Amino acid sequence: MDKDISSAVIRRLPRYLRYLEELMNEGFERISSSELSKRMNVTASQIRQDLNNFGGFGTQGYGYNVDHLHDEIAKILGLNTVHPVIIIGAGNLGQAITRYIRSGNMSFDIIGLFDIDRKLSNKSVAGRKIMMYEEMPAFLSKNRVDIAALTIPREDALRVASDVIRNGVKAIWNFTHTDIPVPDDVVVENVHLSDSLMQLSYNLAVRTCSGST
Amino acid sequence: MDKDISSAVIRRLPRYLRYLEELMNEGFERISSSELSKRMNVTASQIRQDLNNFGGFGTQGYGYNVDHLHDEIAKILGLNTVHPVIIIGAGNLGQAITRYIRSGNMSFDIIGLFDIDRKLSNKSVAGRKIMMYEEMPAFLSKNRVDIAALTIPREDALRVASDVIRNGVKAIWNFTHTDIPVPDDVVVENVHLSDSLMQLSYNLAVRTCSGST
Repeated sequence: MDKDISSAVIRRLPRYLRYLEELMNEGFERISSSELSKRMNVTASQIRQDLNNFGGFGTQGYGYNVDHLHDEIAKILGLNTVHPVIIIGAGNLGQAITRYIRSGNMSFDIIGLFDIDRKLSNKSVAGRKIMMYEEMPAFLSKNRVDIAALTIPREDALRVASDVIRNGVKAIWNFTHTDIPVPDDVVVENVHLSDSLMQLSYNLAVRTCSGST
Repeated sequence: MDKDISSAVIRRLPRYLRYLEELMNEGFERISSSELSKRMNVTASQIRQDLNNFGGFGTQGYGYNVDHLHDEIAKILGLNTVHPVIIIGAGNLGQAITRYIRSGNMSFDIIGLFDIDRKLSNKSVAGRKIMMYEEMPAFLSKNRVDIAALTIPREDALRVASDVIRNGVKAIWNFTHTDIPVPDDVVVENVHLSDSLMQLSYNLAVRTCSGST
């Protein structure tokens, strides 16, 4: 796989996938870059450029085969395999994410939740057991886990991250309100909820200061 | 307020704020751009450039006054006022976000949750009442609401967005798995959880294909 594709292009691929899924659900077999461009509200040339990064999957005069393009992008994103995921922190957010992933037809499977709260012991969320945090090392030694989602207070983030990394997890989905430094062979994806809330706040402030737009 | 500041700079500001809060908690009164650069793992010149966009708040040989810089960035982000927020969809995710915002010392206040599930009627989350969705228009006519968070199924997203916009809400925090087209005077901030999960999946795929890194 070509590692030189810009991360900006990679970040746009999930959105392509989302629109291609909608097209599949609507029964489309093929779509031109200009039709796709109208739906996605980006230029057709952007679409062609993005998809050319992967050898381009379109044919002149025919457009893109929706199923094929969907599958190719899914493959690029590593979605042609199921990734086992654990959730650390089984509060509302951990439970919300568990239900979300379990309800979607996605290439991710929650195989366990962990928490330190004894009241949650042996309870289940969407059919998946909540275990105690101290059981995690043994669990990780017996089960392959691709991704650990951290839905815990920020003050626990570094310690928990170092625990999961020490036990072989290579990807961290970080919902804590802090940055997590990791070794080179581990990837982190941050979902900083307050950052996105601040973008909204900024946009509201700009609008107020400049009068109505 | 200068509207020409690049959105990339604006997107970096919440992270500055986060580090400045940490510094305040640790009792720092001032910090040089080079110290801040080490902590944040970005170049000192990037920091100086970013902050120069706002007239620069540093003094040669002294560095930045932590409190002052924090307050200035907060002001730029519109955090010097409290934004009333409603949550539409009071399931796990809506509840998680309510608890998150209510527990933080943030410039946002959840003033109500709405749902269509009658079983949730008159229940509360973190001290905030869940109301029925049909009560929303009357609520919005009586209360100023800056931001509506949509934590609902994707198939309801467009209808609900159009309802809140019709009732005067100017900012949408979109957790649904779909894009929401809005008029020019309305802003949307998307939190597409599956997109960030796919970034992790991509990074895992790249690593596997290129051998260990």
